[in-house]
Parts: sequence; structure tokens; C-alpha cells
Amino acid sequence: MNLRLRKHHALGNDFLVYVDRDGARPLDSGLARRLCDRHTGVGADGLIRLTSDGDGVRMELRNADGSLAETSGNGLRCVAQAVVLDGLLAGPEISIETAAGPRRARVGATGADGVAAVSVGMGRPDVGAEQADEDPSRRRRPVDMGNPHLVVLVPDPGTVDLEREGEAEQARHPDGVNVEYVAVAGPDRLRIRTWERGAGETQACGSGSCAAAAAARDWGLVGAEVAVENPGGVLQVSFEAADGEIVLTGPAQFVAMVEVPVRL
Amino acid sequence: MNLRLRKHHALGNDFLVYVDRDGARPLDSGLARRLCDRHTGVGADGLIRLTSDGDGVRMELRNADGSLAETSGNGLRCVAQAVVLDGLLAGPEISIETAAGPRRARVGATGADGVAAVSVGMGRPDVGAEQADEDPSRRRRPVDMGNPHLVVLVPDPGTVDLEREGEAEQARHPDGVNVEYVAVAGPDRLRIRTWERGAGETQACGSGSCAAAAAARDWGLVGAEVAVENPGGVLQVSFEAADGEIVLTGPAQFVAMVEVPVRL
Repeated sequence: MNLRLRKHHALGNDFLVYVDRDGARPLDSGLARRLCDRHTGVGADGLIRLTSDGDGVRMELRNADGSLAETSGNGLRCVAQAVVLDGLLAGPEISIETAAGPRRARVGATGADGVAAVSVGMGRPDVGAEQADEDPSRRRRPVDMGNPHLVVLVPDPGTVDLEREGEAEQARHPDGVNVEYVAVAGPDRLRIRTWERGAGETQACGSGSCAAAAAARDWGLVGAEVAVENPGGVLQVSFEAADGEIVLTGPAQFVAMVEVPVRL
Repeated sequence: MNLRLRKHHALGNDFLVYVDRDGARPLDSGLARRLCDRHTGVGADGLIRLTSDGDGVRMELRNADGSLAETSGNGLRCVAQAVVLDGLLAGPEISIETAAGPRRARVGATGADGVAAVSVGMGRPDVGAEQADEDPSRRRRPVDMGNPHLVVLVPDPGTVDLEREGEAEQARHPDGVNVEYVAVAGPDRLRIRTWERGAGETQACGSGSCAAAAAARDWGLVGAEVAVENPGGVLQVSFEAADGEIVLTGPAQFVAMVEVPVRL
């Protein structure tokens, strides 16, 4: 049997998406590891299975190491583009069931280069109280975006020793934490670098961009529409007036269709 | 237009193979870079284009950085399997035109797991004179396999500081050199680790395995049939009685068919 997969990426975070139309093929951790291996397999950061029960689409995400994951902002943008391009749901407004609950998405038109602007609902941030930092030029506060973040306001993220500091924070947080080092880069504009638990420095972090914007907004540094410069590209974070939910907007790109022979 | 590619790997060295049936689509360096990018593209160590003029098949290999390359033992095994699976030539005995001249190959049957045993002619080794090594427990000699190698016989390749020593050899060789640290692992059996110029430590090096076997044979340590244990797997090196040509045998695996939208 051949497994037909879509490959998409969002700011360099790449995923294989399997549309399991009849829901007959769960993806186990071994298959995820084999397919995601960048040398002996197809190669990706994660493998996503989509199932549809008629009125909804559910996603299930496994990391390259085979472990089950909640969704990520980048993964969700890839999934939303895949759902519409594959005809599972009619865009532009769709909803996807994730392990963290339903997520709304808005999928723009995909251009000839395979790129679409995709907005996804990221829920309401839970911004914690400011914490003391021994460095007086810094401020810090925890933000819960469904996953734990620590936002550290610094004079210049570019000069932070990300590995040393990021790992030191892991030692202080028994369950691990995603750390964003952030500075104001202009009106309603932030610049960040992220150290993700289990992954190290990444080119762009969707939930991290949201956490940084939420903390910066609480500090009065930005308004309700914030551009967040990640090393891999800019993400737009919007706070909805009605309910305070965050909408994250950024590019997703369809890369290829992949057909893999898989023994059942 | 969609570009239809095959992905194959040989001991973890992975290639995208494009069969250009009407010879109408040269692959430029920009396309190679985009396709080989492991996060925003499909991902591979190199992109290979195959053309056929009726009685022969020619391969053209670009590295992931877009540069043109002569063929590699791993790349050639992938190509040979692709040529037969794609029906360009009938196996098992085929010949492929490369930038380094024609190469013979023998392609075994591809199993349900996508794996075939593939033998490729690697030409005759040019084994240079022994060179002095300041460490009395070591011996060294240069071997030309079309590309330059330095074979260093050591007590245990596992304890060599590969990066430091490999880079020190680059500084001594203005054009760069592939360095193999080799030890006898049993009768007609070698164990090697390779530092490839421009690539660093690799999981398996086809021409390096040939160079190591040729040097070891000149030292009288092995016979005409040598198993070479690379970190990524075992390659078999055979010296042909008739002309001294080396035949390299090892696995190649078909991974996937990939279809990429490409703007012309």
C-alpha cells in the first residue's frame, strides 16, 4: 500500500500531513519516526494525521521522535492550509479539532508559489505576575498559552547566550518551559528569539510570539495588533476585542505531495 | 508544472532523482538548493538529473548547496536503483555516464522494504607511497579514487578526535582531502570513520571505503574481498582480478515518490 502525504511548512517548521479519509489508518510512533527521519525517510519535524467525521476535522500530531504532541501554531497553520487544499473543508473560515480543543482558522488563497496567509485562533493567554530578575535591565513574566512560556524583556535579544540561558531556565522549571527573549523593535513591533523545551533555538515559534505579545501588552509596550519578528520571519498577533482571544497570522507553504510505499 | 522526483538513500546519504525523459529541463543551482533544503523544501543531500539518449543514461549531480559534483559511491548506488525501478534501463547489469566517466552497476532485486543490493564500479585506485606519521602507532598513505583520500591506519578509529584531526588535515591539503581513520576489525574486515572535505563526519563514505581497502591491501592487511564497517553500515569492496578495478557493493533504498509544483 502507498501512503500519500502532503508536505507543508510554516516559517521553516515542516510537517507531513496524512489525510486519512476513512479513518482506517492510525499512525504509530514507529511510522512517525521512520517517515520524519531526514536521511533515511522523507524528513519533517512532525507527522500529522487528519480524520473527518462528516462535520468536523480532527488532527493528531506526532513529533519526529514519535511522541504525541499538542498542536503548535506553525503546525496548525500547515494543517489549515492542507485541509482547504485537500478539499476536506471549504475555506476560508474553518475549525479544526486538536488535542487542546477546537481551533478556528482562516485560510487565504494559495498563490502560485504555494504560499497562503493563514490565521489561527490560539486561545486566551494567561499572563502571570511579574517576577524578579537579578538583572535590573530585564523584566520577566510567565505566560500560559496552553503550553508554558517565560517571557524575558531584554535590551537586545541578539546578544543573549540563548543556549546557556535557555537551559538554565529548564533547570529552574521541572516541567520545562519555552523561553522568549524579547525587545521592542518599533511601534507595536517586537523582536524575539525563542528557546523551546526539547528543541532548543527555533526559527520561529507561534505560541511564543503570542506569549511575548501578551506579556508586552500587559507591560503597556504594545497595543492590540503586534508584529513579532522571529529569526525565520514575521508573525502577526491580534487580540480580539470581544473575548481577548489571540489570533496568530503568518504564512504556510505547500511544498510537495509525497507517496511512500508502506508495508501494512 | 509539477516536477516528479524519486527519493532514494544509500546508508543515510539521500538524493532526489529527477528523470528528465525528454532532456528538456536542466536543473539549475537555485532549484537544487530549494528542493534540497531540509525545512522549506523536500530535503536531501543532493539532486540528480538523469537523461537518456537512447542507448545510454547520463547523470548530473548537484549538492544541496547547488554546486555541481562528481558522483559519489552512495549517489551512484541510488541512481542505479532509480534507473532500473524507473525502467530507463533493464537490469541487472547497467552502465551510467557520470562526470567522471562511465560507471558499471549491478542492481539486485528491490524487496518489499524498498532495499536493493547494488554494486558499482569505482575505477582503479591510485595508491600513493607511505608517508611519515609522527605517531609511531600510525601509518598513512594517500589514495586517489578520482577524488583525494588520505588513509590513516590507527589502533582504534573510535577514539580519534575526528573533527580536530580531520580539519588539521584540511589545513595541510590546499585542495582539501577526505580522511579515513581505519583499523583491522577481523579477517578481510576493516572498521573506518571518515571526515569528508566540505561535509565533516559522514555515516558512510563509498569512495572512502574503497580507499581504505586499497591502502590496507597494499599494506598486506586484507585480500581482494573486504568488508568495510562504516558507522552507518557495512560496504563490501572487491578488487577485480582482471584489471584491478574496485567494485563497491551496498544497499540502496527507494524511499518515496515526490511531486513538487515548480514555476517555470
